Amino acid sequence: MLADRLQKIYRAAGAEALFIEQDFLRRYLTGFYSTDGYVVLTAEECSFFADPRYFEAAQKQLAGSGVSVKEGALKEAYEALAPYKNIGVPKAFTTLARAESLTGKGFTLIDCMPALRDAMTIKTPDELSLIARACEIAEDAFTATLPKLKEGMTESEAAAILEYEMRLLGASGVSFETIVGFGANGSVPHHETGETKLKYGDAVLIDFGCKYGGYCSDCTRTFLFGDDKKHEEFKKLYEHVLDAHMRVLEQTREGMTGKEADAIARGALAEKGLDKYFTHSLGHGIGLQIHEYPVLGPRSEEKLLNGMVFSDEPGVYLAGQLGIRIEDSVYMEGGNVHTFMKKLGKKLLIL
Amino acid sequence: MLADRLQKIYRAAGAEALFIEQDFLRRYLTGFYSTDGYVVLTAEECSFFADPRYFEAAQKQLAGSGVSVKEGALKEAYEALAPYKNIGVPKAFTTLARAESLTGKGFTLIDCMPALRDAMTIKTPDELSLIARACEIAEDAFTATLPKLKEGMTESEAAAILEYEMRLLGASGVSFETIVGFGANGSVPHHETGETKLKYGDAVLIDFGCKYGGYCSDCTRTFLFGDDKKHEEFKKLYEHVLDAHMRVLEQTREGMTGKEADAIARGALAEKGLDKYFTHSLGHGIGLQIHEYPVLGPRSEEKLLNGMVFSDEPGVYLAGQLGIRIEDSVYMEGGNVHTFMKKLGKKLLIL
Repeated sequence: MLADRLQKIYRAAGAEALFIEQDFLRRYLTGFYSTDGYVVLTAEECSFFADPRYFEAAQKQLAGSGVSVKEGALKEAYEALAPYKNIGVPKAFTTLARAESLTGKGFTLIDCMPALRDAMTIKTPDELSLIARACEIAEDAFTATLPKLKEGMTESEAAAILEYEMRLLGASGVSFETIVGFGANGSVPHHETGETKLKYGDAVLIDFGCKYGGYCSDCTRTFLFGDDKKHEEFKKLYEHVLDAHMRVLEQTREGMTGKEADAIARGALAEKGLDKYFTHSLGHGIGLQIHEYPVLGPRSEEKLLNGMVFSDEPGVYLAGQLGIRIEDSVYMEGGNVHTFMKKLGKKLLIL
Repeated sequence: MLADRLQKIYRAAGAEALFIEQDFLRRYLTGFYSTDGYVVLTAEECSFFADPRYFEAAQKQLAGSGVSVKEGALKEAYEALAPYKNIGVPKAFTTLARAESLTGKGFTLIDCMPALRDAMTIKTPDELSLIARACEIAEDAFTATLPKLKEGMTESEAAAILEYEMRLLGASGVSFETIVGFGANGSVPHHETGETKLKYGDAVLIDFGCKYGGYCSDCTRTFLFGDDKKHEEFKKLYEHVLDAHMRVLEQTREGMTGKEADAIARGALAEKGLDKYFTHSLGHGIGLQIHEYPVLGPRSEEKLLNGMVFSDEPGVYLAGQLGIRIEDSVYMEGGNVHTFMKKLGKKLLIL
């Protein structure tokens, strides 16, 4: 399986050899996690150059995988490239310093990121199940956190509890900095979690996710910490955001572009005159990175295909007043969209 | 202050304009934290192009700072560069894709990382106090975690507790993936925290740190979870590692090279025939990134100067048996090294 995947990427890249040093790409190509190391992929073989810290473990884990583990570092990787001229590197992740080092040795650099991206965007069953587990951990941790939210608690404390619960459930860490917004802070889509204290009647927006086996989950829920009867507008808007979110789940089909999916949500909000408050894109691909191909936004021509994983996250934001976002990590299968978030409800929650 | 710093970097870079888009460098140059945005630094001004998500907050925070906040994104930043030809970018952090985009517009790229690095490596009093707080949080969290360690607990659970305590104390997150190694796992310097369970008599190695105000702390402690009387060699080795660690604190002077500091620890261990088990470098610079300039290692000619922050982390590792590392984050001031870790003791702790 791995060998097939590697050869497919190799052929698509159109280079004589690929040179990969980024953590997440190294993990994708070899299945082995390390904070250092170099992969050289040629028509003949896939070599993983691991330093003494990783060599033994990599050799053990990758035996029979089609990846040949060799003790070494940059020098050895460069030596393996020496017989070739056209080297594929992922230009979006390769530093200019590295590029100059390679071209200084006479190599010509070709962008292999399109080939990698095309492979990585279609998840294997193994990858889907890791993402499913990352989503389930996020859901269970959220459920465990809700009863621990107390008046007077800061956003940072709430984030600490949620992250702790995810970690206890087996997450290796967060997939991005947890966003907790109390009250009007929810109206800032990328609010920096801080020292604002939770008050009775606050709307609460939490955007969170974790990593499991390297793969990310991404989820947002907005709810009320008690109902102080000042939330008539909030409740109305919540229903409209939820409607936009659900329509994307129900109406998105394989072969649609990111723009068309985005238009489903934006159109639903436009019917209520709310599209001008939906100030970001509908979603983004999810995998080893929290933001991957494809983009689901007003200008995206990228096609949504079976095996892709992405977020469905419409929102409305009234500056300084309130923000509502409802987000699931979802996947395309059999031509339709399915959510990974099977445990968390989406009806407005009032604690 | 900020304006002075910016002009000093500008002059040292030797470019007509600097173009910066990396989170940590943007934060360093402007003092404002954002996940997106572009800084263009010219002889006349420092412009921060912020999108609508950040524009208002940046304008408010940076009023009077010497940084001019402008609403915009990449397009606007490129327009600001247009009058110039030689553009400084940090080559070690700029992607080849960005470099090709810039050279495609006719710009010539110069590496401004040496100028940035020289400035960033000498911490201001404000930076030192943020690092001091990040260290204090790490220490207090470690102290709070110790009584919560129980037999049968996994490494991941121990890491979860420690990270939770750091978060509760105000850390924004970890500064790197927490390493918890129970028993022989401590002999792998970069052990991946996993499902190994804690047993009575285990040696425990924890390498951890957090971020506060963007700045990192880094600390390692090795201790015994109960004394099963099988630790004679461990205790002897512990004293030797501690001796190496303390000699670095006491004997390192301003103007020494990273190689000379490393040799203090390596020499101390060599006296006991243990230098061959010290399989990594003595330390690394610490700041907005967990690994910064300078390197303290056997080949480092980098000079240690007042205002620098780095780690002092000698260790010995007997593969498959045991590992001991004792690490503080420290700083150079008045010609000598001082530790930030004033709360945690270093005598062998037996729980």
